[in-house]
Amino acid sequence: MQVRMRFDDAEIAAVYRAIFERRDIRHFKPGNVETETLKRLLRAAHHAPSVGFMQPWRIIHITDPALRVALHNAVERERRATAAALGERGDEFMRLKVEGILECGEVLVAALMDGRDKYIFGRRTLPEMDLASIACAIQNIWLAARAEGLGMGWVSLFEVDEVRRLLQMPKGAKPVAILCLGHVEAFYERPMLEAQGWASRVPLETCIFENVWRTDES
Amino acid sequence: MQVRMRFDDAEIAAVYRAIFERRDIRHFKPGNVETETLKRLLRAAHHAPSVGFMQPWRIIHITDPALRVALHNAVERERRATAAALGERGDEFMRLKVEGILECGEVLVAALMDGRDKYIFGRRTLPEMDLASIACAIQNIWLAARAEGLGMGWVSLFEVDEVRRLLQMPKGAKPVAILCLGHVEAFYERPMLEAQGWASRVPLETCIFENVWRTDES
Repeated sequence: MQVRMRFDDAEIAAVYRAIFERRDIRHFKPGNVETETLKRLLRAAHHAPSVGFMQPWRIIHITDPALRVALHNAVERERRATAAALGERGDEFMRLKVEGILECGEVLVAALMDGRDKYIFGRRTLPEMDLASIACAIQNIWLAARAEGLGMGWVSLFEVDEVRRLLQMPKGAKPVAILCLGHVEAFYERPMLEAQGWASRVPLETCIFENVWRTDES
Repeated sequence: MQVRMRFDDAEIAAVYRAIFERRDIRHFKPGNVETETLKRLLRAAHHAPSVGFMQPWRIIHITDPALRVALHNAVERERRATAAALGERGDEFMRLKVEGILECGEVLVAALMDGRDKYIFGRRTLPEMDLASIACAIQNIWLAARAEGLGMGWVSLFEVDEVRRLLQMPKGAKPVAILCLGHVEAFYERPMLEAQGWASRVPLETCIFENVWRTDES
C-alpha cells in the first residue's frame, strides 16, 4: 500500500496549528488524564525518530502521591540553587512560576535507558544523540497533547542523582525531564517567559545563515 | 481572544498522522524545495520549546554545491570510522544507506549557538537541555515536512570539528545535525532500519514504568 504523500490542506494546517499553539504550561486545573488519552500520547512518544533506531526513551508514570511530593521538593531545592546562580536576576526568576508538579493531572519522568554505551550508530562522535531522540519523543507528546486540549510543561530543574535515587534508577539511566501533563483553563497566547518579560523571541533571520556562520550576531 | 482548547477530531487525527507517518528519509528525488515552503518549515522550527526560552538553534542553509560535497565527504569518512568501531556488524552497517546529502533538495546544518554558558535557567544541573531544545525544533521541521509531503533525514555521522571548520563556526557553536530535506518517491511504510533488519521496534510496555524503574529489562 502506497502511503499518501502530501496531506490535504486542512491536515497541514492542523499540524502547523499544533506547532504554533503548543506552550510550556505551568498552570493546570484539577483532574487526571483519561487512561486511553495517556496511552495515545505515550504511543506518539514511542514513534519518535531515534538515532540508529535505539529507542532510548523510558517514561516513569508517577502515581504515588508521596513520590510526586518528593519530586516537587527536589525541584524546589534546585529552583533556589538556580536563583542563587542567576545573581542579579535571581529575584525575578523566583517570581516566575516554573512548574505545576503538584497541580497537574499526571507527572511523567522521562529518562534515558541504561546500557547506552553499546549503541554506536550515529553516536560515535555525538554520543548525546540519545538525548536528541528522547527530546523528539517528548515533543511528540507535547504536540499531540496540545491537539487533545491538554497542557504540558517540561521541568529540568533538578539534581539528576536525586531523581535517579527517588525512582530507583540504575546508575546508567539518566532522568532528563519531569513532565507535568493535564487539563488547563487556557493555553497561554504567548510563551509565558515572553509574556512575563524574562526573554523575547529573537527574529527568525537571526537564526538562519547561508553557507557560513555570521559571527557579528553572537 | 481565547485560544481554542481541544482541536476537532480531524485535526487531532492529522497531528497523530504526521507523528506516525514521519520517517527518517535517505532516498530523495531531484528538485529543490520551494522557498515559501522552506520558510514555513523554518518558522515551525523557531516555534519549538526551548529551555528558559533561550532559542539556541541556528540553521545554516547550504546552497554552495562544493560545500555540500565537502559535507558529504565528512560523513563518508565518519561512516567508515563507525563501521570499524561497530566490529562484527560493520559490514552490515556499510550496506545500509545512511544519508542522502548529494541527492536531496536542500541541506540544512543545525547547530547550537555560541555563548550558551550564560543561560542558566533549566540548565544549571542539565546544561545539555540546549540540545533538547534544538531537537524539538528539528522534530517540528520533520513533522511539518511530512505533512507537506517532503522527506527529511537527520545525519549525525560527522566529526564536529570538521563541520564547524567547514561552515566557519565559532568554537562555542556546535553542529548537531546535517538535515537532508526534499521531495521523495515514497515514504517508507516502516522505519528503514527496521525494514532492513538493523533493529526492531521494542514493545511500548518495555519503555513505560510506574513509580519505580524495572531493572529486569535492561
